[in-house]
Amino acid sequence: MKKIIVLGTGLVGKAMAIDLSRNFDVTSSDYNEEALKFVAEHKIKTLQLDFTDRQRLKSALQPFDLVVGAVPGFLGFETVKSVIESGKNMVDISFFPEDPFLLDELAKEKSVTVVTDCGVAPGMGNVILGYHNQQMQIESYECLVGGLPMVREWPYEYKAVFSPIDVIEEYIRPARYVQNKSVIIKEALSDPELIHFQGVGTLESWNSDGLRSLIKTMAHIPNMIEKTLRYPGCIEYLRVLRETGLFSHEEIEVRGVKIKPVEVTAKLLFPKWKLKPGEEEFTVMRIRINGNENGQPKRYEYNLLDRTDRPTQTLSMARTTGYTATAVAHLIIDGTYYRKGISPPEYLGEQTSHFNFIMNYLKDRGVTYRVS
Amino acid sequence: MKKIIVLGTGLVGKAMAIDLSRNFDVTSSDYNEEALKFVAEHKIKTLQLDFTDRQRLKSALQPFDLVVGAVPGFLGFETVKSVIESGKNMVDISFFPEDPFLLDELAKEKSVTVVTDCGVAPGMGNVILGYHNQQMQIESYECLVGGLPMVREWPYEYKAVFSPIDVIEEYIRPARYVQNKSVIIKEALSDPELIHFQGVGTLESWNSDGLRSLIKTMAHIPNMIEKTLRYPGCIEYLRVLRETGLFSHEEIEVRGVKIKPVEVTAKLLFPKWKLKPGEEEFTVMRIRINGNENGQPKRYEYNLLDRTDRPTQTLSMARTTGYTATAVAHLIIDGTYYRKGISPPEYLGEQTSHFNFIMNYLKDRGVTYRVS
Repeated sequence: MKKIIVLGTGLVGKAMAIDLSRNFDVTSSDYNEEALKFVAEHKIKTLQLDFTDRQRLKSALQPFDLVVGAVPGFLGFETVKSVIESGKNMVDISFFPEDPFLLDELAKEKSVTVVTDCGVAPGMGNVILGYHNQQMQIESYECLVGGLPMVREWPYEYKAVFSPIDVIEEYIRPARYVQNKSVIIKEALSDPELIHFQGVGTLESWNSDGLRSLIKTMAHIPNMIEKTLRYPGCIEYLRVLRETGLFSHEEIEVRGVKIKPVEVTAKLLFPKWKLKPGEEEFTVMRIRINGNENGQPKRYEYNLLDRTDRPTQTLSMARTTGYTATAVAHLIIDGTYYRKGISPPEYLGEQTSHFNFIMNYLKDRGVTYRVS
Repeated sequence: MKKIIVLGTGLVGKAMAIDLSRNFDVTSSDYNEEALKFVAEHKIKTLQLDFTDRQRLKSALQPFDLVVGAVPGFLGFETVKSVIESGKNMVDISFFPEDPFLLDELAKEKSVTVVTDCGVAPGMGNVILGYHNQQMQIESYECLVGGLPMVREWPYEYKAVFSPIDVIEEYIRPARYVQNKSVIIKEALSDPELIHFQGVGTLESWNSDGLRSLIKTMAHIPNMIEKTLRYPGCIEYLRVLRETGLFSHEEIEVRGVKIKPVEVTAKLLFPKWKLKPGEEEFTVMRIRINGNENGQPKRYEYNLLDRTDRPTQTLSMARTTGYTATAVAHLIIDGTYYRKGISPPEYLGEQTSHFNFIMNYLKDRGVTYRVS
């Protein structure tokens, strides 16, 4: 049986380990022993690891056939680099700020396959765009996506399923989108727009830096934008926190102690952003692709509305994000996908068979994209 | 020439020292040497003092005939206590949380006259209510008051003229009002209501703990409420900061360091709440008193709209707050007001001559209450 190690045992890391354990010999690792206890109950091997200890990490990876990365964004790039250096194939979902292509040469040198940004968004949006990009001349791509709790609690009406510090990053990082082939940079949380979603109600979209690799790999598409969704009104509060300096990484001195305001804010916000036991959430995504196919103007719309799986209590954001990565894990470990170097998920979409495999894999797990 | 010392050289303390220096030998004192430099330019004597050094404070007060207190709220009570212990008469404007009547016995024992809360609100509202309480049977008292910058800057649209930590206190302290002779306690920032003010536009009122001594001294009035005014919308942001815990005085641990979130927030907010040189502001106040006078139902309304004095660049909040205190300073130093113990300003309003003196003193300085 092939051996897989999952780095990071957060909500998504857990769901991936459980899913992969159906077919593989899976080990979950994390620095946090508490998090490991949960997966141990699911008969998954565990390994306590400090991912910042590069040497220890690299030697720990040796027995494995594939590495799945699910660490917080700030640890992502260095972790992927260590995995490549240890000569292992990898699927990664960490939302790191660095350009993954900086590791492309190294990955080719080591002859490994590394798929980055392999979640729902970034992730599935890229797969879908990569697929249609082979079939048609695309004029525009728009992706709206959000993961939200069913029950809205003032003021943020939000719960974080992935690393909450990455959530704050989304509110700070300037957002890039493409208009008439030019990259436009806007403040995060800008251009709020109210949009109605069937079965959900009205949400508010805002500019987030979600295009990532697509800006480079899909440079021929004139218009591309990704926006994140929240319940209406909340982003104004986040803008106020940011304007006040409460998301700032710049140290200030308070009573002789140097402190980063964002760390104080994070400490206060994270307990509020934590899902309570049994609390349900959903993922909503709408992708629109316009262009010409076989000489005809054509428009594709993909809609996803996925909710917490009640029988297993697996969160929707963990399912939609994690199962994209585990689908790709299958493709790599089976030798079906073997492109060397860094692959953003749009590379996987390029082949119809890979695209279909991922879509069916997700559908089998109840994550269904409705296409029109 | 009678000698007065003004404790605290903030924006209001400065204006008071300058005003009193027309008729008295005035010394300004503060811990901050920078602040003292400004009043020194106005030919006012200066004295650097750490008000928390009680012994030093008490001996420094010895040469003076009257003490005017203008320290931040958290220093207020202890400072007033020291002044009483040193046997000096005092007018105080510090917004301290403690009950001033706790010092009443001590003040009587020392045979000193101490007028507390002697600003615009608390202050003039009390004087006006004290006056009408002698003339009529009052059914209800309502005071709406705010000090705001002329230019509105998102998100807070606010500038602090007195100690900004006292401003945050207003957003935390539960607000007490009186309804049918019962004291009702509401969260600060609650019950927002949009109200139109001539020459100002629409403002938002909310519950603040401004009645203070009136709850005790005017217990026979069935309905009393004080609300603070801000530009509409901003108080929602303050509620979010409070809900997030950013106004909390409870220590949290961040990277091994214990810190009070409010101190981090204050450090970030205070520079934003500072008036820029030349920036203008205004004070708006509306007082409504309903009741029966000589067997007839009667309603009095007082309106104040005061702006920064351009020739002298004296801020409106400094004028409306400070000149109430300097008017009363005259009454005490002249021997006109000599009641021993703690006097909230409603005691001064009780005598028509005192009431008229204060109103005229303010009018002479351009602070005019329009009565209807």
